[in-house]
Amino acid sequence: MTDKLWGGRFKQRQDSLFWDFQSSIGYDNRLALYDVEGSIAHVKMLAKCNIIPKKEASAILGGLSAILKEIEQGRFKPDPKAEDIHTAVHLALLKKKGKAADYMHTARSRNDQVSLDLRMYSKDKIDMLVSLITRLQLELVNFAKKNIDVAMPGLTHTQHAVPILFSHQVLAYVNMLERDKERFQQAHARCDEMPLGSCALAGTSFTIDRKFVAKLLGFSRISENSIDAVSDRDFVIDIISAVSILFMHISRFCEDMIIFSTPEYDFVDIGEAYCTGSSIMPQKKNPDSLELIRGHCSRAYGNLISVMGMMKALPMSYNRDMQLDKEPLIGSIDLSEKILNILCDLVKGITVKKDKAEAAVKEDESLFALDMADYLVAKKMAFSQAHSVVGKIVSHSVAKGRKISAMPIEELKKFAPEFDKDLYKIFEPQRSVMSKKSMGSTNPLLVRQQIDKWMKALKR
Amino acid sequence: MTDKLWGGRFKQRQDSLFWDFQSSIGYDNRLALYDVEGSIAHVKMLAKCNIIPKKEASAILGGLSAILKEIEQGRFKPDPKAEDIHTAVHLALLKKKGKAADYMHTARSRNDQVSLDLRMYSKDKIDMLVSLITRLQLELVNFAKKNIDVAMPGLTHTQHAVPILFSHQVLAYVNMLERDKERFQQAHARCDEMPLGSCALAGTSFTIDRKFVAKLLGFSRISENSIDAVSDRDFVIDIISAVSILFMHISRFCEDMIIFSTPEYDFVDIGEAYCTGSSIMPQKKNPDSLELIRGHCSRAYGNLISVMGMMKALPMSYNRDMQLDKEPLIGSIDLSEKILNILCDLVKGITVKKDKAEAAVKEDESLFALDMADYLVAKKMAFSQAHSVVGKIVSHSVAKGRKISAMPIEELKKFAPEFDKDLYKIFEPQRSVMSKKSMGSTNPLLVRQQIDKWMKALKR
Amino acid sequence: MTDKLWGGRFKQRQDSLFWDFQSSIGYDNRLALYDVEGSIAHVKMLAKCNIIPKKEASAILGGLSAILKEIEQGRFKPDPKAEDIHTAVHLALLKKKGKAADYMHTARSRNDQVSLDLRMYSKDKIDMLVSLITRLQLELVNFAKKNIDVAMPGLTHTQHAVPILFSHQVLAYVNMLERDKERFQQAHARCDEMPLGSCALAGTSFTIDRKFVAKLLGFSRISENSIDAVSDRDFVIDIISAVSILFMHISRFCEDMIIFSTPEYDFVDIGEAYCTGSSIMPQKKNPDSLELIRGHCSRAYGNLISVMGMMKALPMSYNRDMQLDKEPLIGSIDLSEKILNILCDLVKGITVKKDKAEAAVKEDESLFALDMADYLVAKKMAFSQAHSVVGKIVSHSVAKGRKISAMPIEELKKFAPEFDKDLYKIFEPQRSVMSKKSMGSTNPLLVRQQIDKWMKALKR
Amino acid sequence: MTDKLWGGRFKQRQDSLFWDFQSSIGYDNRLALYDVEGSIAHVKMLAKCNIIPKKEASAILGGLSAILKEIEQGRFKPDPKAEDIHTAVHLALLKKKGKAADYMHTARSRNDQVSLDLRMYSKDKIDMLVSLITRLQLELVNFAKKNIDVAMPGLTHTQHAVPILFSHQVLAYVNMLERDKERFQQAHARCDEMPLGSCALAGTSFTIDRKFVAKLLGFSRISENSIDAVSDRDFVIDIISAVSILFMHISRFCEDMIIFSTPEYDFVDIGEAYCTGSSIMPQKKNPDSLELIRGHCSRAYGNLISVMGMMKALPMSYNRDMQLDKEPLIGSIDLSEKILNILCDLVKGITVKKDKAEAAVKEDESLFALDMADYLVAKKMAFSQAHSVVGKIVSHSVAKGRKISAMPIEELKKFAPEFDKDLYKIFEPQRSVMSKKSMGSTNPLLVRQQIDKWMKALKR
Repeated sequence: MTDKLWGGRFKQRQDSLFWDFQSSIGYDNRLALYDVEGSIAHVKMLAKCNIIPKKEASAILGGLSAILKEIEQGRFKPDPKAEDIHTAVHLALLKKKGKAADYMHTARSRNDQVSLDLRMYSKDKIDMLVSLITRLQLELVNFAKKNIDVAMPGLTHTQHAVPILFSHQVLAYVNMLERDKERFQQAHARCDEMPLGSCALAGTSFTIDRKFVAKLLGFSRISENSIDAVSDRDFVIDIISAVSILFMHISRFCEDMIIFSTPEYDFVDIGEAYCTGSSIMPQKKNPDSLELIRGHCSRAYGNLISVMGMMKALPMSYNRDMQLDKEPLIGSIDLSEKILNILCDLVKGITVKKDKAEAAVKEDESLFALDMADYLVAKKMAFSQAHSVVGKIVSHSVAKGRKISAMPIEELKKFAPEFDKDLYKIFEPQRSVMSKKSMGSTNPLLVRQQIDKWMKALKR
Repeated sequence: MTDKLWGGRFKQRQDSLFWDFQSSIGYDNRLALYDVEGSIAHVKMLAKCNIIPKKEASAILGGLSAILKEIEQGRFKPDPKAEDIHTAVHLALLKKKGKAADYMHTARSRNDQVSLDLRMYSKDKIDMLVSLITRLQLELVNFAKKNIDVAMPGLTHTQHAVPILFSHQVLAYVNMLERDKERFQQAHARCDEMPLGSCALAGTSFTIDRKFVAKLLGFSRISENSIDAVSDRDFVIDIISAVSILFMHISRFCEDMIIFSTPEYDFVDIGEAYCTGSSIMPQKKNPDSLELIRGHCSRAYGNLISVMGMMKALPMSYNRDMQLDKEPLIGSIDLSEKILNILCDLVKGITVKKDKAEAAVKEDESLFALDMADYLVAKKMAFSQAHSVVGKIVSHSVAKGRKISAMPIEELKKFAPEFDKDLYKIFEPQRSVMSKKSMGSTNPLLVRQQIDKWMKALKR
Repeated sequence: MTDKLWGGRFKQRQDSLFWDFQSSIGYDNRLALYDVEGSIAHVKMLAKCNIIPKKEASAILGGLSAILKEIEQGRFKPDPKAEDIHTAVHLALLKKKGKAADYMHTARSRNDQVSLDLRMYSKDKIDMLVSLITRLQLELVNFAKKNIDVAMPGLTHTQHAVPILFSHQVLAYVNMLERDKERFQQAHARCDEMPLGSCALAGTSFTIDRKFVAKLLGFSRISENSIDAVSDRDFVIDIISAVSILFMHISRFCEDMIIFSTPEYDFVDIGEAYCTGSSIMPQKKNPDSLELIRGHCSRAYGNLISVMGMMKALPMSYNRDMQLDKEPLIGSIDLSEKILNILCDLVKGITVKKDKAEAAVKEDESLFALDMADYLVAKKMAFSQAHSVVGKIVSHSVAKGRKISAMPIEELKKFAPEFDKDLYKIFEPQRSVMSKKSMGSTNPLLVRQQIDKWMKALKR
Repeated sequence: MTDKLWGGRFKQRQDSLFWDFQSSIGYDNRLALYDVEGSIAHVKMLAKCNIIPKKEASAILGGLSAILKEIEQGRFKPDPKAEDIHTAVHLALLKKKGKAADYMHTARSRNDQVSLDLRMYSKDKIDMLVSLITRLQLELVNFAKKNIDVAMPGLTHTQHAVPILFSHQVLAYVNMLERDKERFQQAHARCDEMPLGSCALAGTSFTIDRKFVAKLLGFSRISENSIDAVSDRDFVIDIISAVSILFMHISRFCEDMIIFSTPEYDFVDIGEAYCTGSSIMPQKKNPDSLELIRGHCSRAYGNLISVMGMMKALPMSYNRDMQLDKEPLIGSIDLSEKILNILCDLVKGITVKKDKAEAAVKEDESLFALDMADYLVAKKMAFSQAHSVVGKIVSHSVAKGRKISAMPIEELKKFAPEFDKDLYKIFEPQRSVMSKKSMGSTNPLLVRQQIDKWMKALKR
């Protein structure tokens, strides 16, 4: 053997262009740790089951431990000519322990091995992402807390709807992220299945102990069907799908902040540390970080389509196309890690401009139209009728170019005699949010409760 | 009010092209049932909480019950000019009960109402799909059972790998479908959140009882943040994503069957009832059903990209773009229902040709190469060495154009002295699958155990 | 024959669920016209080449003409049990002309026939879309002309960059649409290839005259390879791809208008005819038309992925999966037609608020930072140095909370002695746009030239 | 200036995580050559138009020429802290020529500069891809020529249809590739527009000569609208779209070859140089190259969705999201280059097994069913009737398990008296393909003509 785990049957060398093209060693390195840990467990099992001689097993385990250390210390240099990480580890072992290495690959194939490596890698990385999401949630909750009482125009259709608390909107993202975590955790559970021993696709004639390997590697169960085990990439799709939805949520947050940081809105100030300037316009402070993160959302979608399209209509069982799951998977996870880290600090650096946000509410009294309608309903008018009455007043106000609060009560009574002088109290942002009663609403007391709830839940 | 739940503020009519374009009434009908059930619960709550007068509440509930009956009996004709299903129900109620109807829309908005309807619809449909998947799993298990002992060439890279049982491959799909069910059930749990009372985005000033509504409608919890509640379409993406992965699995099954039903393979016969002919070639019996189902996989992907792309970077909270979730959602669910139903019967009609499948194994002795290597390992040779020895024999056999089993033992001993006459027993498909020992392998006894396990689990 | 163009070989009927599932008659109707026109040309050719008897040919042609008339008058009712439009036309002919109909399907297959129909349909529809795009361009040019001299803040990164003309930005869309037209025209050219006579995949043994058919049907060339002819759906992808990019451009226009119509920007007013209201908030006037059109962009992307994914890795030649090109194709075209029509009128109804737009420029003097740098360059300072000087002034202005134009010249001279009193003239929107000299710039004279150029080009 | 082309306005440094995240210097290097060439042309123009002093211009041009040489010789080391390639070149120039460098960035912005670089890069790379596609076409034509007279079962629905020539199927791919070239050339024409001078988005106040720059850089025209110029990434989408369709075609070729190289078909042998083995199964020779290329098709789709999704609904004009076009563009082009190169050699190494392919035709006489029907039509039977007659014979043959050619003429006459002893000549693959008459058909003479035509056209 030189650079392959096969070759006896071949008389010709591989074309060099093709060899480079098919090699996955570039990103496989990310799996090195898991590959060696998997081999250690596998060889322990082979020895325990008397499938390979104890002496050689012991030599292999010594060699693998040494390689493991090299990897952990960043000293492992995989042979660049090796086809993949499995071969690279094999070659390194061969160098250290000679012929004993030839016993390692008993009762397994690279088909089940790569599935094992990917699953171990994925479980680790999901744990990391879940804790980063939790950190981002905490930053958002702190952000909400710091700006708890800032009222601003709530938007639907990017148009003024009713006054809300800025903090209430920030907490909406905490809820979204909570669902994201759930998705990652469910993907984790689907990764948590030990495929080794499925071999090429049919299992093995050696009396191996798959549950022993699963236990050593911390898997909660073994795969039930060897053909499914080597053909399955659902867990990869699950992860990239979870990343895609996470990025979608994040892209919405970025959009909110981009809009709010325009000079026209001017509700927030993005820290300079997360902006860049222009090579031509000296005044520029552009929210590049938010734009790039927003843009990366469709990169995640692209990765998802790439893997889903790759898996479509592949016949049983393993096909080489499936190697192309690695770059999108690893790429999506790396990107998530970067973006979550950046966002955590970025959120800390955003300044909310209470005066501007509340001035915007006061400026546009149509934001209180629902409050006016509810006022009429409280005086026993049916809601649909109240809706219609207030609609006419708003229209009248626009036509006349006069604020509603500036109209004398007589003028308003013409639209509905129910109106009285207490109506004028309505046009206050803080009063409006205070008036909300329903669970989940923008009422400051309820928002504060949510903040406390999250603080407790997230700090566990 | 004429055909809208708004209008007081408007002086111009909507452009008719735009009106048709924006109307969702075409597919909204699918939500009619849920819309009325939701309104009934909402009005019961409004009355209980003294927010609307008892008399009007009672009139509304009477009217809604009548409409509900019409829907269930397929007699409900929504006003074609109504903007959406919410308006259509409102108009129908207005016709039946006059002014009382004006009290219904208190303390809610179409933003939370459409979320409610979609969630109720989704929960129902997921239940239906889960039971259809279970039915398909049962058909596959029966299919495996009926053909329990058919050996055939197991494939990796669409090339001969090792002998496997046909039934073992069929069961791989049962495992895939089990993960699909899990995904649908997790999507169900994310649907199971009652959004009503979130109103436009900020909640309401009326003292409503959201938990009461949730209880009446069978929801296990209420949404925690009103802004998130009206902005969230995660559950739609979850469902279409689950459909996409389900269809991916199914497309692989179709591909297997399409390949196996070619004259060259000829392992299976697809029932005529699921084939069509050609307008030009009289002999043709084409597996159109399998091809169409395979093709629909990318339709599901298209729906997924459509909704994910639509949600990207939408600012808080509700935006009208979000209406475009309905067609992909309903379309994906309808398609799933059709395809699952067809597959259940199609599977029943497939005939497996045992003789052809096993002849293919016997014809190509390279399928026993792994068995030969394991034979040498059992005689204490290291696996990598055994792999190399057998590789050379296969290569020799190809070059000489002679079967391995036809070579005298002396010829084989030249490659490895460990070979002995018992080697010749190896070239038997049934012996090969029987020799497998590992859990999850293609061993007939283990496959039978799997069949029993599934039978029990699925029939619960 | 009953409802099929085949069946002699079949002993079982098709499963009814499958039959409905595989039928394309629902949307095939859109192809009826082309199917009959194609058959007329085909039969004329068969008669001319003495492949079928003149008498029967004449009967068929009579029947087809009658069917054509029925289609044109909307009276054609395809047999709902027919498998597809080809069969439906055949059945209708059979009803009218009896056995003579049996001669029609000589020397062709549905494989080449459906390609013909789709290509004829596509050519027609592309012509229609191209003229609609031209109409939209004209509306945009008129829109630009009407608002020729409105200055506003030009945006990069959704932040203030430099003053531009609103009309200049509108014309950017005219350029985008011009590229869209080019794409459609190139797709048209790829449709313009006559596939009939390719039959199932191999051509025919009859001495047909394919060029004669092409001429009758207005095709500029015939397909060169019969296998490619029945396997090719590039033209479908080309069209949906062109639609996707068109919708992408349009989504950007919608986004611009949505942002500009927020109360914070308030640069434009979208006509009420293209807005809707809220069921809860009486004041609401939401730009639903723009949001829905924006959202449809990802529907087009979904259609593209759907067809591209369907075609991936299909073996030669025709496969039934390919039937699934029709819904996305027809759907994309219909949607384009609707959206372009709506936009044409919508654009006409937008009011631009010159005062608001220009006030926004004057309010934020940082928009003149580049003008200040260019001022220094004109006084021989190197640009990078000028950029740095002005950057510091802007920063100073923000820190002090004072407008640059309000600073005495001495204060400014501290940053660069080159500044002089003529600097104060700079802070004028109209002067800024007037100062631009480069071709393609926002200078009103150049914008006017562009408008004239487009007027001439588009009205041809 | 340190590592930025801006900064005067900033008081804080950028966060280091964000700085790395936003930097594009990693793949920007691919644009270095074009960036410098663009700057040389720009500075020549600035000097010619007297916008910058001759002396400094001359210094800059000297410095840029030196940098150009370094790039061409692979010696250029961009400052890793530089934000992007534009900055890196600026810094390198500053090092060489000091303050003179400050004059270079007059009358341009990175917004128009990056568009210029990308367009120049794209034009070059398209030229390269077009010539690679031509090379692949030539290899395919040679491949067809070498195997000109191999008959095999033509497939529709992956089922036997009628006999065709293998070479005819190979030529179908040459036609597909011809359309691909056309698409790339059309994309090239859309790249061929000189954007420089559009500056940030509005043009410049300096009297620049954009046409002069265009001429120096070999562009055929200048962009007409400065806002469109910096906002447009259509050409990127055009290229990735062309790559996607190219890969789709190629994936179909791979699928054909994968199927044909299975032991069941065994029509072709893929050279060992393009296969790999298995770590567990010694006999394996897997067509990994074909599988990986097939799989990469959906990678291209992913890139397309990524860029299209990124551009959706971006407001005018430049937004930082747009930087994310580079990796997908460069990645798609690199991948195309690799895959086309590999395929050219791979095709050369495929051996077609004439005996196996023709035996498959002779084995399955249903392949001659259309020939039988045409036989009857030649004897004046209507085609639909002939189709039905032959359908019954095929069905009879299957039921009886007897070949049609083995049935006595009396048995056949019962189905149609038109049958005569000359019928038996029909069951010959070569006769069947010879019988085809229509242009574009599988007739060997016509296929040969096509080969000649391509040879001439491609070698020009």
